[in-house]
Amino acid sequence: MNTEKKKLVEAITSQEEDFVQWYTDICLKAEMVDYSSVKGFMVLRPYGQAIWENIQAILDKRFKATGHENVAMPVLIPESLLKKEGELVNGFAPEVAWVTMGGSEPLEERLAVRPTSETMFCDHWSHVLHSYRELPMLYNQWCSVVRWEKTTRPFLRSREFWWQEGHTIHETAAEAEAETEQQLNCYADFAEKDLCIPVVKGRKTDKEKFAGAEATYTIEGMMKDGKSLQCATSHYFGDKFSRAYDVTFAGRDNKLQYPFQTSWGMTTRMIGAVIMTHGDDSGLILPPAIAPYQVVIVPVAAHKPGVMEKAEELRQRLSAFVRVKLDASDNSPGWKFSQWEMKGVPLRLEIGPKDMEKNQCVLVRRDNREKTFVSLDELETAIPRLLQELADSLYQNALKNREAHTYAAHTLDEVKELSATKSGFIKTMWCGDVACEEKMKAEAGLSSRCMPFEQENLGEVCPCCGRPAKTMVVWGKAY
Amino acid sequence: MNTEKKKLVEAITSQEEDFVQWYTDICLKAEMVDYSSVKGFMVLRPYGQAIWENIQAILDKRFKATGHENVAMPVLIPESLLKKEGELVNGFAPEVAWVTMGGSEPLEERLAVRPTSETMFCDHWSHVLHSYRELPMLYNQWCSVVRWEKTTRPFLRSREFWWQEGHTIHETAAEAEAETEQQLNCYADFAEKDLCIPVVKGRKTDKEKFAGAEATYTIEGMMKDGKSLQCATSHYFGDKFSRAYDVTFAGRDNKLQYPFQTSWGMTTRMIGAVIMTHGDDSGLILPPAIAPYQVVIVPVAAHKPGVMEKAEELRQRLSAFVRVKLDASDNSPGWKFSQWEMKGVPLRLEIGPKDMEKNQCVLVRRDNREKTFVSLDELETAIPRLLQELADSLYQNALKNREAHTYAAHTLDEVKELSATKSGFIKTMWCGDVACEEKMKAEAGLSSRCMPFEQENLGEVCPCCGRPAKTMVVWGKAY
Repeated sequence: MNTEKKKLVEAITSQEEDFVQWYTDICLKAEMVDYSSVKGFMVLRPYGQAIWENIQAILDKRFKATGHENVAMPVLIPESLLKKEGELVNGFAPEVAWVTMGGSEPLEERLAVRPTSETMFCDHWSHVLHSYRELPMLYNQWCSVVRWEKTTRPFLRSREFWWQEGHTIHETAAEAEAETEQQLNCYADFAEKDLCIPVVKGRKTDKEKFAGAEATYTIEGMMKDGKSLQCATSHYFGDKFSRAYDVTFAGRDNKLQYPFQTSWGMTTRMIGAVIMTHGDDSGLILPPAIAPYQVVIVPVAAHKPGVMEKAEELRQRLSAFVRVKLDASDNSPGWKFSQWEMKGVPLRLEIGPKDMEKNQCVLVRRDNREKTFVSLDELETAIPRLLQELADSLYQNALKNREAHTYAAHTLDEVKELSATKSGFIKTMWCGDVACEEKMKAEAGLSSRCMPFEQENLGEVCPCCGRPAKTMVVWGKAY
Repeated sequence: MNTEKKKLVEAITSQEEDFVQWYTDICLKAEMVDYSSVKGFMVLRPYGQAIWENIQAILDKRFKATGHENVAMPVLIPESLLKKEGELVNGFAPEVAWVTMGGSEPLEERLAVRPTSETMFCDHWSHVLHSYRELPMLYNQWCSVVRWEKTTRPFLRSREFWWQEGHTIHETAAEAEAETEQQLNCYADFAEKDLCIPVVKGRKTDKEKFAGAEATYTIEGMMKDGKSLQCATSHYFGDKFSRAYDVTFAGRDNKLQYPFQTSWGMTTRMIGAVIMTHGDDSGLILPPAIAPYQVVIVPVAAHKPGVMEKAEELRQRLSAFVRVKLDASDNSPGWKFSQWEMKGVPLRLEIGPKDMEKNQCVLVRRDNREKTFVSLDELETAIPRLLQELADSLYQNALKNREAHTYAAHTLDEVKELSATKSGFIKTMWCGDVACEEKMKAEAGLSSRCMPFEQENLGEVCPCCGRPAKTMVVWGKAY
């Protein structure tokens, strides 16, 4: 290892030494984020923003394909509007940032910087909805929201984060429930296919559900260190908000009715999930679907005649089918290798005078560093194939990691022993009583991640109280 | 005119009767915006948001083609950070919304909801900039900003608006000045080619320039009623902010230097400009480049065998090269015609049993209602041609309107006479003294729009004071 490369790699804490510090190092050194002068707020730098824009593009297309339309709601919400639905405001009140001055004058009513926008959507619908013919209204918005968190960490928990929030209203409860399910499946499919993160789909317990929701569904991922991360949620509200905000429509029978509502969201947190699911001690490893550059071209012996010209020719050719970067800087090839490994570019293409003689180049996968010599005539097939193989491999490795760190337990002692010695998902049966859920937290430090749709029968009784079990729960320590 | 159509059209105030009310009617009835429960804040409904997304897509591509990268900065700015550059904070202080509470606790320092982000960009650059090798940094962000305006109107002036703000730093003043000019030209080209709005390029007077800028450049449009609208601005800051925020880099001589800075922005206001430049008494007329639907298909005698199938077949075929909507609703063709005219769809395609017999359809331009019978075999050439003709025509008509309402004046009496009897641009020479600029406001109700790059010599003296003239100014009454 040359000195430059060593210096760069040494600058990252190893995962084994301190996973949390490794994570922070990657966020900063791969130039994804910067801390700002506002405590708990982050800056998305070009590389982080480019990843987010790729996520946005894929999700936005998926949402539009199922009939959703984008809108933009105000960033500020009057306190009286926020308070109309009691559970929601109780859930969010401790984390709201309040605007109390407009210019030099105190406001008559304080305004919340939006923590979530159910209230604004309901307010709007109360103006524009008239007839069942206008239903469903399938809306989404891309924006940032503010929640006054105590402790923060880039992407995972910050006082401002970027997200999409889908909000829909429907004529019937069944249609709203179907929407909730459809959007959860959309998230799961995106997480698994595009982010290469296997997820557990399930329903949140009442304790963990969204403030004001009748039901919250979730996809839960497992990070490399065995900890859990909630990847996205989809909520069913029934007609609770419609009633609180007086959203009505004339039904098929010409009588006034309340529509049934959903909301669903995915956030910049998913970038954190990508980092912690796939990254290694050399840095980030990006799934091809969201990588700002899918291929980086590094010329070797770039001063030799024709090398830079060939590299530029390849860049132009490749740009027809992949996102490609040619690193034409003065740095050494070794430095460039480390730099682009740090940034997680899925494939590196090396081209030098010897390769040119043989009409070939070297393709190196970021994940396993496997080198392939490829004829320059075959790049159009070889590159997409290698990118797909890398994506499949990322998914399979994450799945293996999850399977290796998922444990079944039958007694509270087993749970406590596992929680003390292992990091991962712990599956148990559960009676459904929140007291037992709280006991799991107090005695084993675990929170319920979800009641998976794919249930297993691990026994007949709840390990906490011995009463009959109703469902299987996945527990974990969460980011 | 059938009754339904009449009802819809009558619901819009005519331009002649009350241009301002006509404008508001269009904004609401074309379903672009809704008022919200927060005074002065608007909701972008799907149709308005879709127009904005088309604007975003075109501009974003242009910005990226010239090397700009997107980032995301925090929505809140500490007061102390905002105050480091005195002119900026003095300019914006009266319009800032202040966050003073986080959760249930008062903040130690109040935070501004961003009115503009020069300060955050400088703060970030002070962390990450080290060497001249990293320059230029060419950043942009898409977001909303908040300014506490007294009187508001959809798109034109609201307490929150959506925009892009470009922020760049450069090694030399010359490079920063070139960037300012490049971006102004980018805006002018976009306004003229994509929005079909002719603009006057020029420099703002010191009185009208951006708070803290050394120079502000602008593109100014004229609306149908002769009033002016500032369409976009591009600012040159020199190293004023760099010095205030301690942004430095090691130069080629290895000494610390301050970079030179620019910023430039275009906002949702441009949707207002489009409405007021092209619209008529039947509603909106959208330039094809930003129209959510470029063609609407209206089946005639839709109950007759094969009509709906043919319409759907055409929709699929057209979707390969235009944004197309098939109106398959139960409403009458007449109602649909009015509805989509109101929404400004550039071309209407009518297809009925008689047309099908002749293997043809009718294409109707929104702007002049010209009907063309087109063979179904020729749609791939006819539609793009008609869209281009419509765009050219929109631009030419707007240019004619501007030329017909641009007046030269040589004395203050002439200016006052013109201002009292005509609506439009008034060109005069000017001595450069702010006292004369203020006199034009006080006595003729005019503000300086810009000192156009294309100067004319209208005389030797300033009409206000009789002293030698330095430049020609375009004056107007502005939205």
